[in-house]
Amino acid sequence: MRLDADQLAAFAAVVDEGSFEAAARRLHVTPSAVSQRIKALEASVGQVLVQRSRPSRPTEAGQILVRLAGQVSVLESEALSELMGELPGARAPLRMPVAVNADSLATWFLPALADLPAEQAMTFDIRQEDQDHSIALLRDGTVMAAVTAEAKVVQGCRAEALGAMRYLAVASPEFRRRHLESEKMPGALASAPMLVFNRKDGLQHRFLRGLLQRNADPPVTYLPSSWGFVEAARLGLGWGMVPEQMARPAIDAGELIEIRPGHPLDVPLYWQRWRLESAALAALTDVVKARGLGLLNQDANKEHAGQGR
Amino acid sequence: MRLDADQLAAFAAVVDEGSFEAAARRLHVTPSAVSQRIKALEASVGQVLVQRSRPSRPTEAGQILVRLAGQVSVLESEALSELMGELPGARAPLRMPVAVNADSLATWFLPALADLPAEQAMTFDIRQEDQDHSIALLRDGTVMAAVTAEAKVVQGCRAEALGAMRYLAVASPEFRRRHLESEKMPGALASAPMLVFNRKDGLQHRFLRGLLQRNADPPVTYLPSSWGFVEAARLGLGWGMVPEQMARPAIDAGELIEIRPGHPLDVPLYWQRWRLESAALAALTDVVKARGLGLLNQDANKEHAGQGR
Repeated sequence: MRLDADQLAAFAAVVDEGSFEAAARRLHVTPSAVSQRIKALEASVGQVLVQRSRPSRPTEAGQILVRLAGQVSVLESEALSELMGELPGARAPLRMPVAVNADSLATWFLPALADLPAEQAMTFDIRQEDQDHSIALLRDGTVMAAVTAEAKVVQGCRAEALGAMRYLAVASPEFRRRHLESEKMPGALASAPMLVFNRKDGLQHRFLRGLLQRNADPPVTYLPSSWGFVEAARLGLGWGMVPEQMARPAIDAGELIEIRPGHPLDVPLYWQRWRLESAALAALTDVVKARGLGLLNQDANKEHAGQGR
Repeated sequence: MRLDADQLAAFAAVVDEGSFEAAARRLHVTPSAVSQRIKALEASVGQVLVQRSRPSRPTEAGQILVRLAGQVSVLESEALSELMGELPGARAPLRMPVAVNADSLATWFLPALADLPAEQAMTFDIRQEDQDHSIALLRDGTVMAAVTAEAKVVQGCRAEALGAMRYLAVASPEFRRRHLESEKMPGALASAPMLVFNRKDGLQHRFLRGLLQRNADPPVTYLPSSWGFVEAARLGLGWGMVPEQMARPAIDAGELIEIRPGHPLDVPLYWQRWRLESAALAALTDVVKARGLGLLNQDANKEHAGQGR
């Protein structure tokens, strides 16, 4: 049995764009043509492949084909570029879907992409995801690679350790004056307003537990934006754990202070990617490892795996 | 019929925290106590209120109670603070759930929060959402207020116009040299790599259509982070539409150039909030309107409603 290439392309476009209409626009055909191809593909494999929801998501069976379609597209694009050379217009640049944790995206990841040699004409579909979701995206074939705090290798992937991201507990000088100097430290931290990235971000509570030797329940502001998080600390809306790379300029400028100098938290990061012989994926891996190993903290205490944001 | 306050609190905690276990931790009871309260509440209203999924989401019937619980919590917190004054520990600060579009969060919204008078001891649960989702969050009671590009008033809410956010088409000087000077402008833009925030961000395509008088399909990098977007433009990964407030410092520093000076896009923004007599919500509205009207572009061409990110 062979899969029909048009049907597979229609399926990949629906999953990628999230709807039959958008897929039809991209393929320059009618939505009903897309729908017929999907139905034919489903009939040929004897399984429902797409949930008819909004956005259209692959079923569990569909995920296997998402991954196949992604791998075929990489290999095809590379074969074409080998055949036809890098003539302008010879091929559309390969779009590489990757998942990145928010704080890596806000610091070292984009400079790594900019390091790619010019002959690797790639574009990217970047998903900013927490680590749990990244693993799901690798598994279901939505992304080809991910920067994640999860060390456990996803099936069909290769994982490599990057450095660890170092977090500092910071606040504005005015915040310290107002919330942390009236009472004895570190006890004052048990009731001072705290910034937390989202429901899964346990860094602040971990720092507090280490300091207070007990659990604490301070008032929390949830703020799911890396740069917003630093800005909110600078503006005195709370204290929080910030990547050293983002905190350092504000600390040097006197806009942020370290709450407990000498008490950083280190979060080891990993690069997980599909096992696929692809020059593009190899080139991406090279620049990510160079920046990831170079910029992050190599001598970090790595006992605290499995937390990150 | 009266609703039981403990049961309602258990329900609100489950929806807020996303699981029975986390709700139990917050309420200092066992997960099975939480489960019993939810079942009792469901029995008393004769409807299923919580989807037993991960995260736990309210059903359609449950959404009515989410909103009720939020309103009761605001009014209760304000009555307590009136009764007991602003003594430290008299009450936990009110946590205000708000939805904000990404580019507002990256620019004027956090400074607005920092403008709140000190006696309004509030924390925030900030959701960074595109406008469609913000409307759903207002409607189902998850947030009390939202900054959104949607002018249509959500039922039970009050909407007020803020200014418009002005976007400039920018790229790095090196990007222009490499992609835009070899061919005639504006035609060269039809094939130069383009940055797009996410699948719903139509700003770049709109700018292109205005310039080329036709649709174009350039290679796209999706990058759902406001600061990452500016950084990617600075690093030469593509051109894109960036809020003037974020682009200006990089333009002044010579790191970004405007692709077509004098061709901005303006996106009007609105502040939608629950109709609720609450001093906290009124104070928040004051600072948001002051910054929103003051920082954004008042004399903007407002014909382009309903797009934003």
